[in-house]
Amino acid sequence: MFIHKMTDDECRSALQKASVGRLGCARDNQPYVVPIYFAFDGEHLYGFTTLGQKIEWMRANPQVCLEIDERISQNQWMSVIVFGRYEELPDEPQYEPARMKVHQLLLRRRAMWWEPAYMSDMHRNGSHSILPVFYRIQIGRMTGHRATPDIVEVPAQEATHLIGKESWVDSILRHIGMKN
Amino acid sequence: MFIHKMTDDECRSALQKASVGRLGCARDNQPYVVPIYFAFDGEHLYGFTTLGQKIEWMRANPQVCLEIDERISQNQWMSVIVFGRYEELPDEPQYEPARMKVHQLLLRRRAMWWEPAYMSDMHRNGSHSILPVFYRIQIGRMTGHRATPDIVEVPAQEATHLIGKESWVDSILRHIGMKN
Repeated sequence: MFIHKMTDDECRSALQKASVGRLGCARDNQPYVVPIYFAFDGEHLYGFTTLGQKIEWMRANPQVCLEIDERISQNQWMSVIVFGRYEELPDEPQYEPARMKVHQLLLRRRAMWWEPAYMSDMHRNGSHSILPVFYRIQIGRMTGHRATPDIVEVPAQEATHLIGKESWVDSILRHIGMKN
Repeated sequence: MFIHKMTDDECRSALQKASVGRLGCARDNQPYVVPIYFAFDGEHLYGFTTLGQKIEWMRANPQVCLEIDERISQNQWMSVIVFGRYEELPDEPQYEPARMKVHQLLLRRRAMWWEPAYMSDMHRNGSHSILPVFYRIQIGRMTGHRATPDIVEVPAQEATHLIGKESWVDSILRHIGMKN
């Protein structure tokens, strides 16, 4: 397996392909993580939800973290972590262009049906007409890692960029006393 | 689609079946979310990783949040959110039983190969012998929601427990002025 740090462009490309992420917010240093449906326009991450704990916390503390990952197999995966800032998009003229993006990127695709928070709020309130809260996340910094399978087999001593599966698992087992 | 709040037993059962979750920690109210491989023994959530930002942050602030979700289709998904407390399991006699659990539940299965943080740290340090940090999470409270497909089709006016896909999407579109 070969692991490399993703470039900024690679991270952005992964965000563009993803549609589901896990959004972390925090209040009094208590983190809270929820799955969200989102879209990336190349600059901001857009989402919507109903009023609830997530929105209350992000209004009080706009520091957020969005994580996306994809695991094809044990030696083929990627993970991107974005640190950003929550920005609400209220129904006011100056936010109209941004709100239109939420519509174009998310609502028009009708792809958010699954979002747990949204649906459960709707269910709890027994209503089909809960006003959605539109928001976007300004990206601060991001990091990403991608693993790809070994392309060529090389002797262990030459494989400075490869991690031998057996050897490091054995190494851990040795460390915890399960192997001599 | 029918959505219901999961009972404590249902949440525990979902945690037992899951192996991948997203762990949130926070420092100075900045959340940080990472994918982790974990196991649940019915009482605690067990995991391991290398020293790094995640461990540093959890040592400084043990309040964490673990989220798991599963999406089979748009109208069939579940999501469980656990608020808990990070507890490190150092290589000391009193932690031996707990460390053995990490071995039994996680290491023996060799199922953590994919964990991005672990692998990238190993890669960065060019070493196969980085000491893993073992930890567990004491569960505080948890919530879960599950969506199941409609079993029977009933007229909209009778379907107080069902959410009509068309009607609520249309409702949102109306609210944002995209539909009359």
